[in-house]
Amino acid sequence: MSESVTKPRILTRQVNIGGVSVGGDAPVRVQSMTTTKTGDVEATLTQIRELATAGAEIVRVTVNDDAAADALPKIIAETKIPLVADIHYQHTLALRAIDAGIAKLRINPGNIGSKDNIKEVVKAASDAGVPIRIGVNKGSLHKRYKDMEPVAAIIQSATDELELFDQLNFKDVLVSLKSSEPMEVIQACRQWAKISDVPQHLGVTEAGTLLAGTSRSVAAMSVLLAEGIGDTIRISLAADPVEEVNAAFHMLQALGLRDGFARVVACPTCGRAEVDVVALAAKVEKLAKDLPSDKVVAVMGCIVNGPGEAKAADLGIAAGKSKVAIYRKGELLCSIDKADLDRVLMEEIERLK
Amino acid sequence: MSESVTKPRILTRQVNIGGVSVGGDAPVRVQSMTTTKTGDVEATLTQIRELATAGAEIVRVTVNDDAAADALPKIIAETKIPLVADIHYQHTLALRAIDAGIAKLRINPGNIGSKDNIKEVVKAASDAGVPIRIGVNKGSLHKRYKDMEPVAAIIQSATDELELFDQLNFKDVLVSLKSSEPMEVIQACRQWAKISDVPQHLGVTEAGTLLAGTSRSVAAMSVLLAEGIGDTIRISLAADPVEEVNAAFHMLQALGLRDGFARVVACPTCGRAEVDVVALAAKVEKLAKDLPSDKVVAVMGCIVNGPGEAKAADLGIAAGKSKVAIYRKGELLCSIDKADLDRVLMEEIERLK
Repeated sequence: MSESVTKPRILTRQVNIGGVSVGGDAPVRVQSMTTTKTGDVEATLTQIRELATAGAEIVRVTVNDDAAADALPKIIAETKIPLVADIHYQHTLALRAIDAGIAKLRINPGNIGSKDNIKEVVKAASDAGVPIRIGVNKGSLHKRYKDMEPVAAIIQSATDELELFDQLNFKDVLVSLKSSEPMEVIQACRQWAKISDVPQHLGVTEAGTLLAGTSRSVAAMSVLLAEGIGDTIRISLAADPVEEVNAAFHMLQALGLRDGFARVVACPTCGRAEVDVVALAAKVEKLAKDLPSDKVVAVMGCIVNGPGEAKAADLGIAAGKSKVAIYRKGELLCSIDKADLDRVLMEEIERLK
Repeated sequence: MSESVTKPRILTRQVNIGGVSVGGDAPVRVQSMTTTKTGDVEATLTQIRELATAGAEIVRVTVNDDAAADALPKIIAETKIPLVADIHYQHTLALRAIDAGIAKLRINPGNIGSKDNIKEVVKAASDAGVPIRIGVNKGSLHKRYKDMEPVAAIIQSATDELELFDQLNFKDVLVSLKSSEPMEVIQACRQWAKISDVPQHLGVTEAGTLLAGTSRSVAAMSVLLAEGIGDTIRISLAADPVEEVNAAFHMLQALGLRDGFARVVACPTCGRAEVDVVALAAKVEKLAKDLPSDKVVAVMGCIVNGPGEAKAADLGIAAGKSKVAIYRKGELLCSIDKADLDRVLMEEIERLK
């Protein structure tokens, strides 16, 4: 694949988040957020590790009470990837997160309180070299924007907050312009890209369940990414957050923006299928998860596209009525009985590692 | 939402598929395909009905053997939405599908055989007023294109086939330019939109399992749809085909191209959540499926965006520590005990119908 399908990234200023660059010429970074009570150190650490293993490069944790703030030093000490403290209402929790050594803050201009609060947080962040994301959500805009159109209100909230940061000479900043309505996200992020070089964290907030949330998030983000907009992303799902990371990499890989997983090509199954492709593809996807991302494994239920796709893959499986053809890098390796498929599959995937 | 986020649709010539217009100024149509053996009339009819109920406007069935061809008249007689016969290898099955009263044929130029075969099919389709989709798949290209780059080969295969159709003065045609590689789909479909007004059926073939396939398909299609490309779509998943239809409408609705479902706004859950949002959102999504598509139900696990989102919704649920606030069109209706949530939820959703 030589030609890019996306426009060149719109150049934003780069921010360093605990050693991970975001914006500028850095790759689009994948984030997620824990769903545990942050005060529960073990549960939170376990989930952070799962997210990191899935490929998350930055993980956000809520810091919503004293227990969460108390837990932060222990969590940070045990975590290799940068963590972000999600702050609402109580700016003092932001100060405690900075003290604990957090890599980044997310504050919500809709609820962080007075200018004095913000100044105090910005001063502490500046001293500690901690970047801040101004995280605007349509659902929690300050009441002063309540009479504006949603997109204009989102942009204005971010602009006003950024102006204050600028007055304080604090440049280590990112923005997110979120709504639960994908079209509002697209409009707001497009407008922002025209008026500011502050890097953008993309997200459709409260997007929904696994299928609905993925469809809606990927729709909005793909349109933006194709236009060169977006420096880091979080797909928000009402589901296991590991799926947020999986969906993000599938999308970025589909658009040629990141390496993702070894690709499992699986036919959608139809009346032609001679094998349970759904079950087989799910099994292969699991086995293939640790393969290098340039590998392709094809699982085909019949002979229409089967041999063609299977031949183009590093490992190909094309099922016929009783036999299954196994291809290795385009060469027919053997034709095996269906009963032997599981064993041969595991052996062949091991060979690709 | 006044401003469109997509470019105006590129005007293609319109084709009528059993009463459903595709291309031109018609809405982007949602298709799916059965996974049953077409020869099994009852199973196939059951699945077609499920797909139609989910919103599929056109459904494809494989016609891959005599049993399938024999079953077609019975299936067509019992089906209200237009059906498409998927034909590979045996052009005589296309002729039988036309005789049975099929609404559209899909033929694969890579395997339909000689020009004489095609001429015979086109003649019969022309006489019966049956449109044909030229369905090109990278995985089953004719061997004459084997030395070309994939995208060029896909385009050339469609162009050659269309030239033959043109010679036969057959204009009732659509194309699909599919690959399992989303970037190749984007490139091929963009090129086609520049050189032809033949309507395009979009699809990433063999896209994968539920999450991978949805992410990859929506990524490619959203980019194309945002550019005004695409007249009908099928999301191919190695999963229940009803999910293909659900994902398609979620995507089209996200881009403002179709009405879809009543929108269930659900927070992604984090350490702030005071309720099991994943389970609750899944339950609400099911209950809300039959609501008018302009309705919005918000399920929020905490108080950050909760009240804001819940207030903007027709029905809003924002969970606190022990009580749950219920909003109706922006007005706080009541604050109930968590134990009463299921009952109140069902009553309130019924009220919206």
